[in-house]
Amino acid sequence: MIKVAIVGYGNLGKGVETAISQNEDFELFAIFSNRAGQLEVSSDVKVLPTDQLEKFREEIDILLLCGGSANDVPRIAPQLLKTFNIVDSYDNHGDLLRYLKELDEIGKHNSTLAISATGWDPGLFSMMRVLCKAFLPKSETHTFWGKGVSQGHSNAVRDIAGVKQAVQYTIPKDAAISLAKQGDNCKLSNQQKHIRECFVVCDKADESRIANEIRTMPQYFEGYETILNFISEEQFNREHAGKLNHGGLIIGSGIHASGNTSRMTFELNLDSNPKFTAGIMLAYARALMKLKNQGKFGAFSVLDIPPVLLLDADRENIIKNLL
Amino acid sequence: MIKVAIVGYGNLGKGVETAISQNEDFELFAIFSNRAGQLEVSSDVKVLPTDQLEKFREEIDILLLCGGSANDVPRIAPQLLKTFNIVDSYDNHGDLLRYLKELDEIGKHNSTLAISATGWDPGLFSMMRVLCKAFLPKSETHTFWGKGVSQGHSNAVRDIAGVKQAVQYTIPKDAAISLAKQGDNCKLSNQQKHIRECFVVCDKADESRIANEIRTMPQYFEGYETILNFISEEQFNREHAGKLNHGGLIIGSGIHASGNTSRMTFELNLDSNPKFTAGIMLAYARALMKLKNQGKFGAFSVLDIPPVLLLDADRENIIKNLL
Repeated sequence: MIKVAIVGYGNLGKGVETAISQNEDFELFAIFSNRAGQLEVSSDVKVLPTDQLEKFREEIDILLLCGGSANDVPRIAPQLLKTFNIVDSYDNHGDLLRYLKELDEIGKHNSTLAISATGWDPGLFSMMRVLCKAFLPKSETHTFWGKGVSQGHSNAVRDIAGVKQAVQYTIPKDAAISLAKQGDNCKLSNQQKHIRECFVVCDKADESRIANEIRTMPQYFEGYETILNFISEEQFNREHAGKLNHGGLIIGSGIHASGNTSRMTFELNLDSNPKFTAGIMLAYARALMKLKNQGKFGAFSVLDIPPVLLLDADRENIIKNLL
Repeated sequence: MIKVAIVGYGNLGKGVETAISQNEDFELFAIFSNRAGQLEVSSDVKVLPTDQLEKFREEIDILLLCGGSANDVPRIAPQLLKTFNIVDSYDNHGDLLRYLKELDEIGKHNSTLAISATGWDPGLFSMMRVLCKAFLPKSETHTFWGKGVSQGHSNAVRDIAGVKQAVQYTIPKDAAISLAKQGDNCKLSNQQKHIRECFVVCDKADESRIANEIRTMPQYFEGYETILNFISEEQFNREHAGKLNHGGLIIGSGIHASGNTSRMTFELNLDSNPKFTAGIMLAYARALMKLKNQGKFGAFSVLDIPPVLLLDADRENIIKNLL
């Protein structure tokens, strides 16, 4: 049994808690949270304050870091890796190389292991991009997100003065998917590939100002086809509250020297983004234990891990049943 | 530059020859064939008889075995691995574990490396089955083949007395794909998932006997929905001769403990099965060189290889650009 602890108990932490019930080789030792006193947890696991973590270093094989990527994970991971093995789903693409280097040094110095960015993008989708590029070297690889809830964009809308509730769905454009599938190596920007649809609750008087602030928000909405829906609080609660669905598409379409075309398409449809991410984290936690047993230390990304390490089975059985 | 030689010059060998022109880190040293005198090759590479291979051991980094899986590859690979590193796309699922063990022993004894079964099934599809199972442990993973030409089934029909020409297309059933996507963990047999459609050229008088022999052929057609078309030689040559298209689908659809569903779908659409397989073989040949530089020996499957080894780029760049 692999003894794990959850650090941070938001949607992802809850997802890991339920995912453990479907992965029989894991045992949940405890949930650690800064809000330990106030938490309602769904299983009968103990809940402890994060600052007590160090006391339990002998009893935990791996910490699953489930806090936010914006501040929490990159701040606490380097500290925790000094005494614990960690798995995270840190998703700040631009910071990953620096972060992995920092963790690698700490892990090698302290004989600990980290596997980072184990979600679906970065993570599973990164793997698909590598496979497309490797098998179809003259292809363009296109990443589409959605249809699903973008937490970052929803938060950005909620931060606008006067917005009471808001959600933003990212929707891939059918026309762009068709272009990507054709395989004539077209380049498509994120703006060309996606529609951003918002459902916003606010006072009638604020609507036009808020609409303008959304449409002109740099990076987040500017340049995108943006659909705005102002709706009532009742409708919001009925149709959009607590939505966690997401998905996406990787299309690699390449033309061989002979003129033939090959297309690789990978699609994800998720009722619950955090529940699926939790499943990926556990698979890499399992791989971490196998790397540890091989005497490895340092920090790894999903691209560094052979698929055979991801399952609760030995190599011979995996080759026999799944190769 | 990685210096490779092609052993066996059928459709796959030709595919590798053209694929090398799209992979700038490879150099084709020669094509080895038992039919060396009679071959027409499309590039200006030298063509040599297979029995002269040993003379060139110092000049070749890797042999790409492109002969048939039925007899050629499992017969010559163990012998060649004594002096060469090899990559193959051996596809006999039932024999792979034994074969890998045999090669592993030879490789470790002779300080050589093999990466085996590097096609798309086994190969890329195996990897997808592992990822589905790892990330959605309570899911059923469904493999569909087609629409495309099954060489094995086409050969089986051609072997029937009186058949002048024949091709068999494997076609996934839409209803089975829908069931698989629903994710209620249904089990689907190959017969439930696929239609087998044959186009056959023969004398009118033989049609009903041949139809009966096809429909009742154990393993190949018995129990399958089989569509038979008897057509003229002219139509065959116009519409079906030389067809190499193929494809397939992996669907992993799992229900989380919470009741949410996640679905992973991977689809391949290939104008040319051997051209795509050739691209996969080269990517694993590249990985083989990186394993060699790490001081590794023995035999590996695609499931043993970290994705980061598949590209002609260093790890930092891959993490920066594709993670």
